[in-house]
Order: sequence, then C-alpha cells, then structure tokens
Amino acid sequence: MTDQKATNVHWHEGDITREHREKLLGHRGATIWFTGLSGSGKSTIAVELEGILNEMGVLSYRLDGDNVRLGINKNLGFSAEDRTENIRRIGEVAKLFNDCGVITLSSFISPYIADRDAVRELHAQAGIDFIEVFVDCTLESAESRDPKGLYKKARAGEIRNFTGIDDPYEAPTSPEVHLRSDEQSMQEEIDAILAVLRERGIISA
Amino acid sequence: MTDQKATNVHWHEGDITREHREKLLGHRGATIWFTGLSGSGKSTIAVELEGILNEMGVLSYRLDGDNVRLGINKNLGFSAEDRTENIRRIGEVAKLFNDCGVITLSSFISPYIADRDAVRELHAQAGIDFIEVFVDCTLESAESRDPKGLYKKARAGEIRNFTGIDDPYEAPTSPEVHLRSDEQSMQEEIDAILAVLRERGIISA
Repeated sequence: MTDQKATNVHWHEGDITREHREKLLGHRGATIWFTGLSGSGKSTIAVELEGILNEMGVLSYRLDGDNVRLGINKNLGFSAEDRTENIRRIGEVAKLFNDCGVITLSSFISPYIADRDAVRELHAQAGIDFIEVFVDCTLESAESRDPKGLYKKARAGEIRNFTGIDDPYEAPTSPEVHLRSDEQSMQEEIDAILAVLRERGIISA
Repeated sequence: MTDQKATNVHWHEGDITREHREKLLGHRGATIWFTGLSGSGKSTIAVELEGILNEMGVLSYRLDGDNVRLGINKNLGFSAEDRTENIRRIGEVAKLFNDCGVITLSSFISPYIADRDAVRELHAQAGIDFIEVFVDCTLESAESRDPKGLYKKARAGEIRNFTGIDDPYEAPTSPEVHLRSDEQSMQEEIDAILAVLRERGIISA
C-alpha cells in the first residue's frame, strides 16, 4: 500500500455525483482492464472496442501504456517498484474517469497479480465495475508478432526487465473475460467483452 | 521539466479521436483551472459551475485538491518539490479528460506561476483550451473564512509550508478570468466563466 502522505485532506462531496453524469451519458462508468504479454493484442482489441462503443454512443477512453508513460507517468521506468507505481496511478486515473461516467479501456502489460488486485480493490471500494480481460496467448505467438520490435531488443539484451523474457508475467487466475488472441477472431473477442458489459447493465442493448 | 524516463514508448494514435468524442458529447473538452488562496472560494465556485454545466447537458468533471490527494497523488506532501509534482500530475490528468471531450474544473491553490505555466504549455501543445481563473481575494478575507480551520493551524505552527502564511502565493499576471470572490456575487463569477466558454466555442448557447 502507498502511504497517505498529506494530512488535513477530506473527500469533497460535490452536489453533482457519478449518477448525474451517468444519466447525462446514458450508460455507466466502468474499467475494462486488459492484461497480457507485450504483443498479445491488448491495444488492438481495445482500439477496436473503442470504435464499436463510439458507434453505440457510449463514451469510452483508452488509457494506453505508451500514452500514459509519455504523460502522467513520464517519471517512471520499468523497475518492479516503478511498474507498481505505474499501475497504481493508472488505476487511480481510471477510477476518476469511471466517476465521470466514462468506460475506460486500460491496456497495459500489468504483469503482477498484486498490482492488478490493488486496482480491483480500489474499484470495489468505490462501487465501480472492474472487468479484467486476460489477453492470453503463447510467448511464441506474442514474440512472433513483436509489433514494436521489443522482444528482439530484449533478446539482444538491449532492454532489461522485459516481461516474459527476464521479468515474470503472472497470469490472472479468475479474470472476468479470458481471451485467446492466438485462437479467437476479433469478433469473438469483442462479443465476449460486450456480453459482460450488458450482463452487468453497464450498457443497454 | 520532468525527465522522460521510459524509452521505447510512442504516442498511440487510435482510430477514435478527441473530435469523435466531442461530437458524441456535443461540446468541446477544456480545462478551467481555478487558482487562489486556501479559502478564496475556488471549490465553491467550481461546485456551482459543475451543477450549472450538468443542467446544460455538458459533461464536466471536478478535480479537487483534496480528492486528488487521496488518490493519484496520495504519495505527495506539501514540499515545493511535491507541490510541483502534484500540479504536474493534475495537469496531465486534466489533459486526458479533455482528450476525452470532458471539461475539467481543477481547483487547487497551485501557488507557483512556473507550475501553472507548465500546465498551460502542456495544454497548448495538445491544442486544448486552458482557462486560468484567478479567484482573487485578500488574505484577510480568506483567513476569516478559513472553512477547514487550516489558517488557524498554520498560525499556530501546526501546519508548515502553508500558502499565504509561510509559503508564497504567486498571483497570475494575465489569467483568462480574474474574479474577486470578496466583492463579486456567485452569479457574476459564473457568468464571467460561461462567457469565456461561449466565446471560445467550447459550449454553444
């Protein structure tokens, strides 16, 4: 747990609540948390889902590993400690977006169970749906895609602490959605996620 | 400037852009940045504005000093360095919300010109409107309100680095909106802000 450093701060309850914003938007806020190896297809699926939700009139926002690391988390690297702080901050940002009524699509390797569970707990405490989507595929499959050439660099020793090579990936034990990106079609993957959003009443129809 | 620590990261351009989300919402994203002494009325005005925007069907979200310090910035205190990092992260979060099409209402003391200007520059680079609202009032007026009893504690030496007492407040030199919360009515203050939002085409009518 991160210590609460500032004292004399209290949660400010405004007149306008999450419910007001969700009513304005016509759907509920939630976090869809994609986790999986680099190259597993997390961002590809998130981008596709974002387009489909937009067509449905649903406001979603994609928090992407690369985008976030160029902004809010630009002062973090890839040590275990920095990875934990990276995921912690992203979880907090996702929670703010959910409170605004937005569905966040977070696609980060997020390799450690403890970090993902901390984000899950953060959402649970706020009464916000947290949908963990495990984008599963073999290391061979992810490495053969290698869309950014990162595995090649990791194998050459040019990148250290690379998940799947010299840093572990801890697979989810009970994700809300378990995809096999090396076996399923994009349509099947999207349908599996939309089904959960409908089941939970996050989106209608 | 904060150094960019992670390498091998690139801005991911999704198919769905800010323009798509703004079209869905019917208004543009922007940041309204309230700055002023503790007790100047920043949060009170932001809460009022939030309610009015919601009635207009405009999606806004209030980033509040206290709320943020309990979440994304819980590992930051009140040293000059931590204040700078506090404002930097808030600026980055505001920018993400704007990219989502949301109008953020940020109410933080944000006492240093350099920090506010860094956030302004961040928004300028992204082509996002940054509206600095200086909630001006005399120290005497703020201290007499003292809604959280913080001035009293600061005067007693129980709180250190308190803006206006033993830490400086650097007033904006050319804010987009200059309010006098010890002289103007709430209606006048709200009208002044809405006028700028309309002038810039952030909201219609």
